[in-house]
Amino acid sequence: MATSGQTQKMNPPPLVRIAELEIDPAQLVEYRRALSDEIATSVREEPGVLMLNAVAVKGQPTQVRIFETYRDQAAYESHLQSPHFKKYKETTQGMVKSLKLIETEPILLAGK
Amino acid sequence: MATSGQTQKMNPPPLVRIAELEIDPAQLVEYRRALSDEIATSVREEPGVLMLNAVAVKGQPTQVRIFETYRDQAAYESHLQSPHFKKYKETTQGMVKSLKLIETEPILLAGK
Repeated sequence: MATSGQTQKMNPPPLVRIAELEIDPAQLVEYRRALSDEIATSVREEPGVLMLNAVAVKGQPTQVRIFETYRDQAAYESHLQSPHFKKYKETTQGMVKSLKLIETEPILLAGK
Repeated sequence: MATSGQTQKMNPPPLVRIAELEIDPAQLVEYRRALSDEIATSVREEPGVLMLNAVAVKGQPTQVRIFETYRDQAAYESHLQSPHFKKYKETTQGMVKSLKLIETEPILLAGK
């Protein structure tokens, strides 16, 4: 992370999506591994993938939430075409019981 | 933000919360101003407030989601006692129609 008090007020602002997933409990270990691989590779290799923060709801480990920040729409579309994302989708398609993608409009994104 | 491909695998991991709010539409401008002030001040002044990312659901500007990352439980509790947070709560108590706080367990937090 970066200098203290950094805020992102870019023009245009980054593209932020929230993904809400329910995972098959019998495949949760495998799902988390595939997700972690995909996140690490995306942030490392794709300049336009700014942040991928994945969490589980406390006490409900099959309820996964991912807060995703891309530089712009083009970066997001490039991400969808990346080999590691396609591999993740193939690997996990039988593990994900539901997926809800929430499009957003940033108010203020601030981090260190 | 920081060096490419950074992931947070601290021990213990950061404390991540998701806040889901519904704002009175008649007070949305004032709410967004108060929230932005509180976020900017918290990230700038509190060493343990690592990230506060606030967004609105696209097409539903009164539906606000905040993805909050604190260094640890103590940092979160310190934040709750800060004068800027208390001011935010006082200022906005009549603007917030509902507030849902979701506790989480990080899977992987990765960002540039």
